[in-house]
Amino acid sequence: MSIKGNIIIGQSGGPTAVINSSLAGAIQASKDAGVEKIYGMHYGIEGFLHEDIIDLREKVKTASDISLLKRTPSAFLGSCRYKLPKIEGHEDVYEKIFEILDKYDIQYFLYNGGNDSMDTVKMLSDYAAQHGKPQKFMGIPKTIDNDLPVTDHCPGFGSAAKYIATSLKEIMADSECYGPYRTSVCIVEIMGRHAGWLTAAAALGTKTPDLIYLPEVSFDPEAFVKKVQELAKTKPSITIAVSEGIKLADGRFVCELGSTSDKLDAFGHKQLSGVGTYLASLVSEKTGIKARAIEFSTLQRCASHIVSRTDAEEAFNVGYLAAKKAFEGNTGSMITIQVTSRNPYLVTYDQFDIHEIANVERMVPLEWIINDGTYVSDEFIKYGRPLIMGEIEPYFSEGVPQHLSLD
Amino acid sequence: MSIKGNIIIGQSGGPTAVINSSLAGAIQASKDAGVEKIYGMHYGIEGFLHEDIIDLREKVKTASDISLLKRTPSAFLGSCRYKLPKIEGHEDVYEKIFEILDKYDIQYFLYNGGNDSMDTVKMLSDYAAQHGKPQKFMGIPKTIDNDLPVTDHCPGFGSAAKYIATSLKEIMADSECYGPYRTSVCIVEIMGRHAGWLTAAAALGTKTPDLIYLPEVSFDPEAFVKKVQELAKTKPSITIAVSEGIKLADGRFVCELGSTSDKLDAFGHKQLSGVGTYLASLVSEKTGIKARAIEFSTLQRCASHIVSRTDAEEAFNVGYLAAKKAFEGNTGSMITIQVTSRNPYLVTYDQFDIHEIANVERMVPLEWIINDGTYVSDEFIKYGRPLIMGEIEPYFSEGVPQHLSLD
Repeated sequence: MSIKGNIIIGQSGGPTAVINSSLAGAIQASKDAGVEKIYGMHYGIEGFLHEDIIDLREKVKTASDISLLKRTPSAFLGSCRYKLPKIEGHEDVYEKIFEILDKYDIQYFLYNGGNDSMDTVKMLSDYAAQHGKPQKFMGIPKTIDNDLPVTDHCPGFGSAAKYIATSLKEIMADSECYGPYRTSVCIVEIMGRHAGWLTAAAALGTKTPDLIYLPEVSFDPEAFVKKVQELAKTKPSITIAVSEGIKLADGRFVCELGSTSDKLDAFGHKQLSGVGTYLASLVSEKTGIKARAIEFSTLQRCASHIVSRTDAEEAFNVGYLAAKKAFEGNTGSMITIQVTSRNPYLVTYDQFDIHEIANVERMVPLEWIINDGTYVSDEFIKYGRPLIMGEIEPYFSEGVPQHLSLD
Repeated sequence: MSIKGNIIIGQSGGPTAVINSSLAGAIQASKDAGVEKIYGMHYGIEGFLHEDIIDLREKVKTASDISLLKRTPSAFLGSCRYKLPKIEGHEDVYEKIFEILDKYDIQYFLYNGGNDSMDTVKMLSDYAAQHGKPQKFMGIPKTIDNDLPVTDHCPGFGSAAKYIATSLKEIMADSECYGPYRTSVCIVEIMGRHAGWLTAAAALGTKTPDLIYLPEVSFDPEAFVKKVQELAKTKPSITIAVSEGIKLADGRFVCELGSTSDKLDAFGHKQLSGVGTYLASLVSEKTGIKARAIEFSTLQRCASHIVSRTDAEEAFNVGYLAAKKAFEGNTGSMITIQVTSRNPYLVTYDQFDIHEIANVERMVPLEWIINDGTYVSDEFIKYGRPLIMGEIEPYFSEGVPQHLSLD
């Protein structure tokens, strides 16, 4: 392969605990291939449009920088939630992008993100094809939501799943400490507005909740309260994992029930509240049992102090391979992970046409959701368990993990 | 010293990430001294009154059990929130306790907890003194709240502080990832109803919030909103740590403002909401800036996967020494930690009369709270930083930390 010109890498969408491992992989591949200039988009394509570009040979110089980058949460380069407009009628945006690419002699463009970000790769590679532009565009998969199609799973999911399984085990031990002397319900709210992969990860640990509700099946508040009452007859401490995205049969989000416009606080402000808080209120009201809600919030995607080594290594590899495939002349594809064996766990990597991936969401298979929509099956455990295996120790300084920073 | 009879150890109050290290210390001391029977109270003094007693030589047999016990969150023996009644008029309760002690030939009684639990030690040692009972009663300090007097600090605090400092660093990296393109405020709610030590720990990391509000000084919502507006002029991402216990000048808890009785949800249920959620609503309403709340909830006291080694070792030592001091004939005391040097960090241990400790709460010194009650001083950092230093690696199995269990 012959390298022509420079490379740029961008990070997009909500970060994961290992998105920077993919960046590390892409940087490493570029160094290995002898690319002269390795650029980073500061705040994704949004920053790129403002020509906000970072010299990554300056910012990630040494092998120990690479090590630290792998241990750094959030998007090292900064991220964005900017969706490119369609080409027709917005040619000026695309012309500007290619002007900047030409100005910096950028021949390889890697974009790391989820469904929306793969749309950016699709649009740019389409425009390049239509206008005879030489640049290569490759997608690097990333999302804690695990909802990209084609690939077996997405980098970022395994680490979020490990955080969830670990934290749940700890929370449950805590909740159970008063034994038979106190009955209580703990509702744990987990991210995933449409797909339930992350909430299903609640089943991956060695101490797991009593009930698990995914957004793939509709939620019945009455049946839910009945289940809790039934469990409370024999168990003093009940833990329930719910996706933020669970919906009623009529399509309304359950979290909407908790925030109607007539609900104002003492100062007349509208209250915000999530589905966990709402269901805890519902349980208290209907059963009299003390209930609390715990929301993992952004912790589940930024806890780089407890990443999955499997996930981090795969994140590195998809970043590395995206660069390598681009150098080999490929464009308009995303790197995918294929699992060739679940036990022992073995993978290969491939690439796939971005048109089949962009904007498509993959849900948890309905046959993996069991017990009237209140748990996940062993098939899910077999699928998910390998993804949370292994650890990467943080480097600590002043008692907290060290991170690499742009400043 | 000559050992007569057996020992019993109880855990009480809200657990910490290292309460089981104190238990490990007490067990180790008892084994080292050759005590025949080492008992544990199942669910503290409440379970003890039901004669629910565990044989700890059976449950914690090997050195590797001790190692795993140190890595186990929550109260291994189970805990309780049971306060003994005063002796006068409730002699029957005390007679029952001493009957059980005699029945099992228990001569040494260790109780591990915070202010309320030290009251139990006080009452029992008082009763023993009044009635010529031979048993020795010793307190082992424990509380994430760090509000026990006399001792420099309390085991449990350092690990909770390390979790808070680490998680805040990760959360802030995540919040800042959209840079100048998105303005947002993140309110992080931290435990501590009366004392602000834990919330102050937000300042201990190497990436720290913009504002820190402790319950020791009164909170002014208007001044708060102004501060946020001021910050938002130059900073797109603002992070604020607040204690769950902050109060208005008139003494009302700020969290009460967020849950008035006329605030009902779509199903007519009263909504629960914390101070973080309330302040996020207030910020959104008054400034138009997108605001979210994150509550560490029980995670901050049960995250044994990221304990402070300093804290865990001190927890072990106070447990060990409580047993040793009891064997030497001491009673009615709690083990304390004295810091003889902050830099390098050096400690000694002592014991102190339980009457001066039980039911007394120690607050953050007002002179450590600076910037109009919106931050903590360097004196606090010097005090707290050593307490979060060092790590203990969990033992992982199936991708999550292993814990020791009674079952």
